[in-house]
Order: sequence, then structure tokens, then C-alpha cells
Amino acid sequence: VGELELIAGIERALRESSGRLVRGPGDDAAVVATDPIAATSVDTIVEGVHFDLSTHSYADVGHKALAAALSDLAAMGSRPGEAYTALVLPPSTPSSEALSLVSAMEALAERSGVQLAGGDVTAGPALMVSVTVTGWADASSELLYRDGADEHQLVGVTGELGGSGAGLLLLRGEAAGPDTAGRAIAESDALIRRHRRPEPRLELGRALVDSGATAAIDLSDGLATDARHLALRSGLAIEVRLPDLPLAAGVAAVARAAARDPWGLAAEAGEDFELLFTAPEDARAAIERAADTLGERVTWIGHTSAGSRVRLLRADGSEADLSGYEHS
Amino acid sequence: VGELELIAGIERALRESSGRLVRGPGDDAAVVATDPIAATSVDTIVEGVHFDLSTHSYADVGHKALAAALSDLAAMGSRPGEAYTALVLPPSTPSSEALSLVSAMEALAERSGVQLAGGDVTAGPALMVSVTVTGWADASSELLYRDGADEHQLVGVTGELGGSGAGLLLLRGEAAGPDTAGRAIAESDALIRRHRRPEPRLELGRALVDSGATAAIDLSDGLATDARHLALRSGLAIEVRLPDLPLAAGVAAVARAAARDPWGLAAEAGEDFELLFTAPEDARAAIERAADTLGERVTWIGHTSAGSRVRLLRADGSEADLSGYEHS
Repeated sequence: VGELELIAGIERALRESSGRLVRGPGDDAAVVATDPIAATSVDTIVEGVHFDLSTHSYADVGHKALAAALSDLAAMGSRPGEAYTALVLPPSTPSSEALSLVSAMEALAERSGVQLAGGDVTAGPALMVSVTVTGWADASSELLYRDGADEHQLVGVTGELGGSGAGLLLLRGEAAGPDTAGRAIAESDALIRRHRRPEPRLELGRALVDSGATAAIDLSDGLATDARHLALRSGLAIEVRLPDLPLAAGVAAVARAAARDPWGLAAEAGEDFELLFTAPEDARAAIERAADTLGERVTWIGHTSAGSRVRLLRADGSEADLSGYEHS
Repeated sequence: VGELELIAGIERALRESSGRLVRGPGDDAAVVATDPIAATSVDTIVEGVHFDLSTHSYADVGHKALAAALSDLAAMGSRPGEAYTALVLPPSTPSSEALSLVSAMEALAERSGVQLAGGDVTAGPALMVSVTVTGWADASSELLYRDGADEHQLVGVTGELGGSGAGLLLLRGEAAGPDTAGRAIAESDALIRRHRRPEPRLELGRALVDSGATAAIDLSDGLATDARHLALRSGLAIEVRLPDLPLAAGVAAVARAAARDPWGLAAEAGEDFELLFTAPEDARAAIERAADTLGERVTWIGHTSAGSRVRLLRADGSEADLSGYEHS
């Protein structure tokens, strides 16, 4: 792929859309007008480690890299700002594929109110996309941290879980599709799409801050692992009722076809990029209303208490031993 | 390398040093207090493409990745701010080497007034370091852009040129060391160090803005190429007198040993990470004084005029045909 040609293509794709941008690509650095507080996160995905080109198109890869980075900003509750992309392409990469990767990233950015503001392109032995995203706030107290939870608070989760993990099982052929009826095929397609094209919960993250949530983390490694991160940082214990996890449609059938426990899959598989959060009981109604206004779903799945352990409880009250860290 | 162990080591290395940092590593994003204008740049180096572990230590690689990124901020004349690192490590990488890479980065950051504020670590098929840096300014007019040059201005360069290119020739065994006398060996060592451990000209970049410079670019691709970038963006012609290029000590001898023209090497080899800049005649004295105050050197090597071409002139007035893009 011709680097200069590709860069020119990328610069065309990065039409300025934000009033914040003073200088876009083409100078030594991109220049933006700031708000008082910046939240910045980096997310890198590597071919053969985080995805495989046999199950993901280049467009899927571009979308997923940006979505994973933006999901961190969603968990902070910041306003979305800019994204900067480091793209490493094997020399054999067709230009058209590289451009479709960038276009998918641009499409997600535009829908999310994010400005692609710069980056670089270089050759390398495997496809790799590293995305640095910056979000903005007026004060640091307007952001949600992992350590803000307190004892005797509710634990909630946005959206539906297990979809990405079930989609990956389907892509790997480790679970037959639920059946061949029309509805089930659509369900399988939705699960696979969920794995390939996760959606960062940016608006919902901001709504959580505004409605009184106290801490949040995005579900990239899986609830079992990410709940431990939140518990560790907040210095408390978390109890999660596994049967209350909001499973995406089709997850139960796919899990059974792969001889897996559906709730275990939802808690361990990761990459759903939903938000796990805490809130005092008196914020419950405001959070439910805010989610409803956005047409989104929140589910209360547990509570915090004194201590340091995360306990994942089955329907019979026994504790599940879920290790987490199972994501592709 | 154990990812969690390494991340813990990195978090220890990233002792907070800047009052700007509200949250460092360990949350979903790093949080910093801003100034009104942010300048952000991304630079990625990949094993086998930009460096080779037979000629660079892991510490060299960490230093170089951050230096190359900061050099872009130097060319903008911004105050240095934060750096975010995406580190891709082959599974066989010894933990101690990964930590020495991060420590070298931390040492350069500390000397440069830069806060390492976050990043991620992942596995991959080759060592790769992508660094995103953000610098700050009070107004966009306080920054130096590539398009700010005007006709009939001076063209200057900071420091000395050709050192990195000559160092690479020595490392590759394409040029014998000048001789075996003590002084010449020290010269060779300095050239090699120049290639492995470039220094971003952050203070000098800010001094250039303050002293009336009108445009700047950092010399990463080599003067022949980077002068074209500046000329293109500013919409004018640039004439450079090759014999006036400030060659680093030993460059002439190394170039001759490799059957290369010394000034051609200095103009084409790149990675010196000095600054090429323009300024009106009446800013000349202020710029020289500012450089002198910092113990740094500036050299006037040409001028701008109407047109669009970059002409590199030899001592006899003939035009050299230098393609640029020769860097490792």
C-alpha cells in the first residue's frame, strides 16, 4: 500500500466536523480548543491476538478499535472529543481494505460525535490499530471513576450481556446456530454483529453521571474481571446475582449448544462494552428514567458491601468460580 | 511477559510528577487539567521497519519512540504535556527488557517535563511502540505551523545534521569508523548515540515561537523531504545552500568512508529530529540570542521566495537531486 496515497485518502476521509478542531491532519500535530478537563485512553488491537481476518472484515477491525477506545470514555462519563489512530499495515494490505477500515472508523466517529483528528500509518508484520481518544468535561468532579463506589450501593449494568461472547462462539464454529427458523438466524446474525461491531455507550455514560451514579467501568474483559477492578479500586466487596444478568437474545441457546453455562458465558466472555456501575438507592429512579429517555436499558444485578471480594451467586445461592480473562 | 506484572511495574515507574494530572494509570482513562489549546501527535515505531534489535537496545527503542513523538510538539512550539504509550510485545520479550524500555521512556519524559499518563500493553508478533503526546498552549496563535512561512524569509535549522544518518551507517557496518585515534572513536560513539537517542528540541521550539519564527517542521524524514512539506503547506519556494548545513562532527568522514556526499547524507538521511524553521530577517538577532541563552545552535541555511519548488544548491551553484525518504 502506498503510504502517501493512503494518507491522502485518510485526510480526505477526515473532513472536519467539530468546531473544536483548529488544525487537523497535515501539520506536526493536530490542534484543538479544549475544555477544562481532558480524559484520555489508549486501546490497541492486534491481528491474531484480538481479532482474526478470517472472522472480521477490515471495516469490522476499524470499527472495533475505535469502539473499544470510546467505551473507556463512556465509562468516564466524559463528552466525546477526538480520536488519533496509529495504523500498522502489512505491506500486502490492499489500499481499498485499508481505506474501508478508516471509513468504518469515520462512520462510527461521526455517529458518536467524535472527531478523527490525526494519527500515523506505517508498515509492520501484522495488522494493528491503536486508538487514542480524548473526551472532555468542565470539572473533574463531573467524571465517573472506578473508585467512587461506596458500601450499600446498587450495582447496575447497561444493555445486554453475553452477546459478543456468543457471537465469537458462532464465528469459531463452537456452537451451532440455535436452529434454522427465521427468527433464530436473525438472532445469530445479531450476536455476530455484536461481536464485530460493539457500540460504545457514550450517551448512557454521561446520563449515569448526571443521574447520580458513583463509579463505572466498561465491560471489556468481562464482568467477572471488571467487577474485581471496580471492587479493588473502590476498596469494597461486590455481590452479583448471576440469574439477574440481562442476557442478549440467543445467548442461552448458543451457550447450551457450546456446553457452556449461559450466565457464566455472559460474566466471563467480555467485549460486550456495556457499563458496570454503582449508585445509591436514591439514584435508582433517576437512572432508570435517564436510560429510558435514551431508549436504553439498565438492570440492577447486585450490591456493594464492606470487604474486598467479588461474589458471583447462582440461583441456588452457591458461588460461581469464574476466572474472567477469557476474551479473544 | 506477564501482562499484569508488567502493568504493575509500569504503574510504579509512572510516579506522578505533574500537577496537571488528576488521574494517572489504573482508571478507564487518564484525567488531566488542560490549558486552552491542545496539540496532539502520534508516532509509531515497529521492529524490522524503523529499528532493529541487533543495533538498538530495548531502552534505545523506548527513548526513540518518545523522542520522535515529542519532536512533533517541539516543532509546534507547545509546552510539553502528557504521553500515552501503546506497547506491543512479542510473548518472548523478557520482562526486564520491557521494563528497561519503559524506564528509558520515563527518564526522557522526566528530563523533558512530560508526564507519562497512560497507555496499554498487548501481545503481538513484533515489538512496536506507538506514542501519543499532547502539548499545551494558551492560544492557537502561540503555536508554529507548517503553513506560516512567507516570501523573502530566512530558513534556519537547529543543532547539527547528518549525525543520525552517519550513526546508522556505522551501526550497519557500511562505513568504517574514521580512524582509531581516541577523538575519532568518541566521534563515532556520539554519532551512534545520536541515532539511538535523539533529543527533541522542546525548549528551542518554544524559544523560536517567542522570538518571531513563522513556521517550523521537525526533521524526521530528512531535510530534503521535510523542506518540501513546509514549502507545500506554506505555498512558496525554498532555496537551501547545502554547504551551509551544520554537519555534526564526524559526518564528513563517515560519509566519505561510505562513498557518500556528506551534505547529501545530511539532507537525506533523516531522524536528526532538529527543527527546520522560517523567520523574517528582523527576527534573526532575537532567535540567535534565544538559542544562545539555551546553549543551542541555529544556522541560517537558505531563504523562501515565490513559487513552489525546493532547490538544494551545491557550492558550485548546481542543484542537487535528493529524493529524501531514505530513513531506516
